Amino acid sequence: MSKLIYILNGPNLNLLGKREPEIYGNTTLEDVEKACVAKAAELGCQAQCFQSNFEGQLVDWIHEARENAAAIVINPGAYSHTSIALLDGLTAFEGPVIEVHISNIHQRESFRHHSYVSLRANGVIVGLGAQGYDLAIQAAAELIGA
Amino acid sequence: MSKLIYILNGPNLNLLGKREPEIYGNTTLEDVEKACVAKAAELGCQAQCFQSNFEGQLVDWIHEARENAAAIVINPGAYSHTSIALLDGLTAFEGPVIEVHISNIHQRESFRHHSYVSLRANGVIVGLGAQGYDLAIQAAAELIGA
Amino acid sequence: MSKLIYILNGPNLNLLGKREPEIYGNTTLEDVEKACVAKAAELGCQAQCFQSNFEGQLVDWIHEARENAAAIVINPGAYSHTSIALLDGLTAFEGPVIEVHISNIHQRESFRHHSYVSLRANGVIVGLGAQGYDLAIQAAAELIGA
Amino acid sequence: MSKLIYILNGPNLNLLGKREPEIYGNTTLEDVEKACVAKAAELGCQAQCFQSNFEGQLVDWIHEARENAAAIVINPGAYSHTSIALLDGLTAFEGPVIEVHISNIHQRESFRHHSYVSLRANGVIVGLGAQGYDLAIQAAAELIGA
Amino acid sequence: MSKLIYILNGPNLNLLGKREPEIYGNTTLEDVEKACVAKAAELGCQAQCFQSNFEGQLVDWIHEARENAAAIVINPGAYSHTSIALLDGLTAFEGPVIEVHISNIHQRESFRHHSYVSLRANGVIVGLGAQGYDLAIQAAAELIGA
Amino acid sequence: MSKLIYILNGPNLNLLGKREPEIYGNTTLEDVEKACVAKAAELGCQAQCFQSNFEGQLVDWIHEARENAAAIVINPGAYSHTSIALLDGLTAFEGPVIEVHISNIHQRESFRHHSYVSLRANGVIVGLGAQGYDLAIQAAAELIGA
Amino acid sequence: MSKLIYILNGPNLNLLGKREPEIYGNTTLEDVEKACVAKAAELGCQAQCFQSNFEGQLVDWIHEARENAAAIVINPGAYSHTSIALLDGLTAFEGPVIEVHISNIHQRESFRHHSYVSLRANGVIVGLGAQGYDLAIQAAAELIGA
Amino acid sequence: MSKLIYILNGPNLNLLGKREPEIYGNTTLEDVEKACVAKAAELGCQAQCFQSNFEGQLVDWIHEARENAAAIVINPGAYSHTSIALLDGLTAFEGPVIEVHISNIHQRESFRHHSYVSLRANGVIVGLGAQGYDLAIQAAAELIGA
Amino acid sequence: MSKLIYILNGPNLNLLGKREPEIYGNTTLEDVEKACVAKAAELGCQAQCFQSNFEGQLVDWIHEARENAAAIVINPGAYSHTSIALLDGLTAFEGPVIEVHISNIHQRESFRHHSYVSLRANGVIVGLGAQGYDLAIQAAAELIGA
Amino acid sequence: MSKLIYILNGPNLNLLGKREPEIYGNTTLEDVEKACVAKAAELGCQAQCFQSNFEGQLVDWIHEARENAAAIVINPGAYSHTSIALLDGLTAFEGPVIEVHISNIHQRESFRHHSYVSLRANGVIVGLGAQGYDLAIQAAAELIGA
Amino acid sequence: MSKLIYILNGPNLNLLGKREPEIYGNTTLEDVEKACVAKAAELGCQAQCFQSNFEGQLVDWIHEARENAAAIVINPGAYSHTSIALLDGLTAFEGPVIEVHISNIHQRESFRHHSYVSLRANGVIVGLGAQGYDLAIQAAAELIGA
Amino acid sequence: MSKLIYILNGPNLNLLGKREPEIYGNTTLEDVEKACVAKAAELGCQAQCFQSNFEGQLVDWIHEARENAAAIVINPGAYSHTSIALLDGLTAFEGPVIEVHISNIHQRESFRHHSYVSLRANGVIVGLGAQGYDLAIQAAAELIGA
Repeated sequence: MSKLIYILNGPNLNLLGKREPEIYGNTTLEDVEKACVAKAAELGCQAQCFQSNFEGQLVDWIHEARENAAAIVINPGAYSHTSIALLDGLTAFEGPVIEVHISNIHQRESFRHHSYVSLRANGVIVGLGAQGYDLAIQAAAELIGA
Repeated sequence: MSKLIYILNGPNLNLLGKREPEIYGNTTLEDVEKACVAKAAELGCQAQCFQSNFEGQLVDWIHEARENAAAIVINPGAYSHTSIALLDGLTAFEGPVIEVHISNIHQRESFRHHSYVSLRANGVIVGLGAQGYDLAIQAAAELIGA
Repeated sequence: MSKLIYILNGPNLNLLGKREPEIYGNTTLEDVEKACVAKAAELGCQAQCFQSNFEGQLVDWIHEARENAAAIVINPGAYSHTSIALLDGLTAFEGPVIEVHISNIHQRESFRHHSYVSLRANGVIVGLGAQGYDLAIQAAAELIGA
Repeated sequence: MSKLIYILNGPNLNLLGKREPEIYGNTTLEDVEKACVAKAAELGCQAQCFQSNFEGQLVDWIHEARENAAAIVINPGAYSHTSIALLDGLTAFEGPVIEVHISNIHQRESFRHHSYVSLRANGVIVGLGAQGYDLAIQAAAELIGA
Repeated sequence: MSKLIYILNGPNLNLLGKREPEIYGNTTLEDVEKACVAKAAELGCQAQCFQSNFEGQLVDWIHEARENAAAIVINPGAYSHTSIALLDGLTAFEGPVIEVHISNIHQRESFRHHSYVSLRANGVIVGLGAQGYDLAIQAAAELIGA
Repeated sequence: MSKLIYILNGPNLNLLGKREPEIYGNTTLEDVEKACVAKAAELGCQAQCFQSNFEGQLVDWIHEARENAAAIVINPGAYSHTSIALLDGLTAFEGPVIEVHISNIHQRESFRHHSYVSLRANGVIVGLGAQGYDLAIQAAAELIGA
Repeated sequence: MSKLIYILNGPNLNLLGKREPEIYGNTTLEDVEKACVAKAAELGCQAQCFQSNFEGQLVDWIHEARENAAAIVINPGAYSHTSIALLDGLTAFEGPVIEVHISNIHQRESFRHHSYVSLRANGVIVGLGAQGYDLAIQAAAELIGA
Repeated sequence: MSKLIYILNGPNLNLLGKREPEIYGNTTLEDVEKACVAKAAELGCQAQCFQSNFEGQLVDWIHEARENAAAIVINPGAYSHTSIALLDGLTAFEGPVIEVHISNIHQRESFRHHSYVSLRANGVIVGLGAQGYDLAIQAAAELIGA
Repeated sequence: MSKLIYILNGPNLNLLGKREPEIYGNTTLEDVEKACVAKAAELGCQAQCFQSNFEGQLVDWIHEARENAAAIVINPGAYSHTSIALLDGLTAFEGPVIEVHISNIHQRESFRHHSYVSLRANGVIVGLGAQGYDLAIQAAAELIGA
Repeated sequence: MSKLIYILNGPNLNLLGKREPEIYGNTTLEDVEKACVAKAAELGCQAQCFQSNFEGQLVDWIHEARENAAAIVINPGAYSHTSIALLDGLTAFEGPVIEVHISNIHQRESFRHHSYVSLRANGVIVGLGAQGYDLAIQAAAELIGA
Repeated sequence: MSKLIYILNGPNLNLLGKREPEIYGNTTLEDVEKACVAKAAELGCQAQCFQSNFEGQLVDWIHEARENAAAIVINPGAYSHTSIALLDGLTAFEGPVIEVHISNIHQRESFRHHSYVSLRANGVIVGLGAQGYDLAIQAAAELIGA
Repeated sequence: MSKLIYILNGPNLNLLGKREPEIYGNTTLEDVEKACVAKAAELGCQAQCFQSNFEGQLVDWIHEARENAAAIVINPGAYSHTSIALLDGLTAFEGPVIEVHISNIHQRESFRHHSYVSLRANGVIVGLGAQGYDLAIQAAAELIGA
């Protein structure tokens, strides 16, 4: 199996670093993706990054990952809480799945406390900001023996 | 009214037969669709088959069916449980709607026990595998007087 | 294993076709049972039909089916929603069980949305009127290899 | 800040006026959009109208509005009740948001009583038919000082 | 239509007056039934009395009442709270149905607060002891124009 | 103890018979009150009738009844479902309390299924229209030994 | 039918503009009422304004409106969430009812998310401050053909 | 009072030992009943054994026990979870009641976690297989001073 | 700010000491009020006492207190559990609010466990009988620096 | 019985006054305990003070109090909401129990709204800061006739 | 494997027989423990008895039992309902676990109806007083083949 | 602030690697702690490790950490789901808190889905086995600027 890791980002994550910089910092999605590529390389893997606001597009990429990728790191954003389709797609993926949330979703509105994706994920990392992606790639690399 | 039946399949059903064959068998979505076309023809109807992982695309096709089709057979997959948009689209369709689920959703996680589509469907057939589509086409044909 | 199919009807189904014909049509239980017998014969099986308003009687017949029948088609009527005893009886039956509901129970009062019998049934067919029995016999016949 | 108002309509609203005219009247989405453009103009603003059945597309347009628009008037249709992604997208928009529902959602099925969009909207107008858009544009205009 | 009133008593009501006389008094079911017959006669009707601990038997009698009786007075005892079969049987009865409870069920355990039979009954009389039957027969007689 | 019975009617009952006569008939509150006075007299009691749309006024009258009345017949209208103050007031009244509802509240919206007043009432009579008051006065007379 | 519109304000709205002016502004209830009168006049109607902290008083005025008014604009304040009596009173009113809330109740405590009055209102306008009354009068005028 | 102990078994317990012997062993109901008779004799009591799939029959036997028996040992099977009629019947029995469940119902589906019979039973013994009856007879014997 | 303390008592508290003296003792509301006046005087404050069974009257007095009083001690009785109007009124009062309950409401029916007034009160004292008012006045005096 | 009052403080109360002095002030647990000792002495009692972060230790002290103390004043801190063991221990104590909470727990997270200890306490005082202990000792002294 | 049985008693059980003897009798924990030791010996086993009010101590003893004991009999007292730590500890123990409750917890407050320990226990015995330990030791002995 | 990191492990974690090695592997708590010490050293910090089955002991150590430690990494085990005392203790700690769970608690029983500790934790890492501690130390080191 290949050492490729898919990095999937869900709805509104394209705005990362572009709004409320005093809260979220100036790290943009582009910065995060670059850091992911670098971290993966450092661990002998390859990261490929995707973002979409469309649930169906994310499902399509997950299906694509079945052919190409050894692991998935996913921040499903708001779809974490509403998308059984993502859960089913990820269940059809055989490699490890690491779920990332930038903020601590357990400290926000109660409808953000439950994630369908967690029902499938091997690991879940929440509340650690952009560093969460870094740790997730480490976890994925470990699980695929990279 | 035309005798055309729309066969709509929702998210992840494109993977049918491609994963866990020891569980789901080797019947692929293509096999199912071929069998639907044959069954419809046998009953003097015509089946047209669609699959998408996008909720919006499914809604678009349902709207299209308002112009073209006499009945809809739909396996909404994971969107059964989360999509009020599908329910509303189907409510705007005037012909019969038959909902199909391959597995018995009542024996799975509790979030799969409720289907918004059932609030509109004329009939619902669950747990009978690929045969469910065959029975659904019979039911649709009966209801449109084919 | 024998090709006998038990057709069980629960409480109040003896009134089928006798009340509110403008809604339910003039198909009586006797008509349904005759059609079941004919359909089963057409598929190389034999159907035997029973109806009772007593939960205990239905359980007794299910136990009897363990000795005699290859499959059960059951419309548990109101007991669908309240009888764990039926569920347990059916769990002790080894052949396939197909559950039928004449009306679409998901469009009625919320206490009709849940069926204990569905927790055991191989397949469930709802909302298709008397035709539901016809499809259920097809499903049963398929599952017992008739 | 510009005086442009985005008018967003969600799933199935493209069918407005095309079905059940005895209930919904003959006002089509095109009529509504024309009236919006006219009303906005009357108040010294400019209205730009969009409709999609895709949740992701609506999120994309909301992001676009961050660059272009001073206010958003949105009828999220069925996505009101299920889309946290829309809520998050609108939260990233800095101008006023007015939510419109043609029918009185509080008199319909209980799953329509809650709207995620209302958690962000400045104002909500329900049950007033096509006139709701007219009032929403007035409210938006007032809030952007038009 | 005949002036016959069916008086149906459900499970455990055969013990009336035989246990805890300091609480329930010495009025037995036989006393209640005699008083019902007398009251009905006084109002120009005829009362016929039945008691069973079997849900199915009560349903059978309700079906029988469809042929014979103009009204039903029923104390469904514990089946009030659990029997959808009784509700469905009574729904198939066309005359008035008056539900009686000897004790005030709203002051007892919470599982006695809801009665399926009340969803069909024309009137419900609770907490008035044996007098409740007397008032129920008056109500039935009034409703059947006796 | 005196033989006086207080007849209390809660909010909106002053409109009885004045709206939707095709549904509620032409019996006004005045008719009901006259019939109560007559029935009480027939049973050797005296009825005194009150109506208010103010919860506090109803509580005041209940307190007054502690001095004057042997029994209370009360139709608390909408306050049945929301007023713990009425419950507490009636709990301080020592004679029998009979609660009346003109319509069958168990067949209406779920928020009408629970009555605080039933937690105190000796008997409850629902769904029997204006006749409910007649039966309630009989029940009250019986309980006060009139 | 007359063109008179009743403007009803519920509990604590007499304090409008008198407390926390940095939040609510300096618009008092008197200002709101004056603006209502002016707006109604502008649309060829007449507005009459009332405020009370008593639920019963509001019900009385609604009954009075049955005789005098063509429409009701009501801000029921805290009674929105607790008063079935108001709902019943408004149901007895035959003209249109527009419900107004100054703040966005969906963004406040969960017990403010549900309004009994919305179960009857033709339209509901929330979160738009004093302007809400202006829009409500427009809506009412439209509905009474003023 | 007599030393007779009624041993009541509810629905589907007649199948004990006849199905899935690898799970439930080969102990049949007949074996259990013989062991009960022997254990009771050992303790100077007499056991009489009954089984029915009919709720009403179980209630009848409980009523009969009021005349004959000093204690009841009951495994209500599925009726534990649904039968208020059994609870009421047992409440009318004056001697001790011991409830037995062969499997540990707290480790099964959530609808098996609650037993109406436990609301009346003196003792409850679950999960100990056929030995549970042995212990229950000891408990009953102790409570009746045998 | 003045040293005046408003002592407000809600529905049914006028009956204090007049019913069930074996439970509540012979302390009447008049006694309580006298003791409050004395205690306040002892602490250099002034107490003014009010009681009403009308929710609206209590709201009016709270509004009045905004002009006159430095603190409010309130026993809202049954309105604690149902009145959002009281909560809103008290929120508009700027001084400290102490809530008192004579009985321990947490040991009574579950609908008495929640108090809307507690959402605003500075302090809450329950279960300490008439002494609760004494302690509440001490708390109020402390908070207003008396 | 002795006049000794046990003052028990639960988990994290040892930090009182040591963190966030701008919020909680500088009153430490030592200060509180000293004030308790002084207040008790003033009322002719004796206070003995304990604090532990161990639930079991608190239960042990309550058992000890059965031998030594006439009353218990307890601030159970976080264990209020989770400890049935404390409830049971206090139930075995025969003297009065006064529960104190420094903050108003009804205005904090919903999991702090319920206290098991309140199910046993004679009185509960919340939200009054360190003064709450002073009032609690007065209440305890009153109840033990000190 | 050794024949040692650990007998663990949780919080407040040290008070057994010391309070309310008219209810609980005079059997103390010491009596219970002696009887356990005797019963075990009678069955060829050895019983070792422990009691603590500390959840952590009970967990420690369960861990210790992993080394020493063949079975555990545990009355977890109040920790039954709140301690997942006990559940996890017992899950790590490989021998049989029998749970005992002296009173019938299903007839007490609803928070006592659920036991985490039952999710692990092989058998559960409730409501049989001190005899419950005797029966539990029999059950344990049977399961360890003693 | 010091660079010391407290590593706290809750109930049953002392058994890590000692039971079910085929599932949990052979990594013991000692191994985990050694790895933590090494990882911390690698990042220029110092790790100090603690484990207890006592909730109160964990609270004590957290208080101690207020004096000594710059960050806390905690695996609260079963106390995650039940201990508000831990939450309150951690809230009083000013440095970052990272919560670790070895298994994916979201895929286990529903009572493990909620963690009180997550309401305070800066970050949460679940499902990644012993590697979770490694990532947690990285996260802590990052947050304390190590």
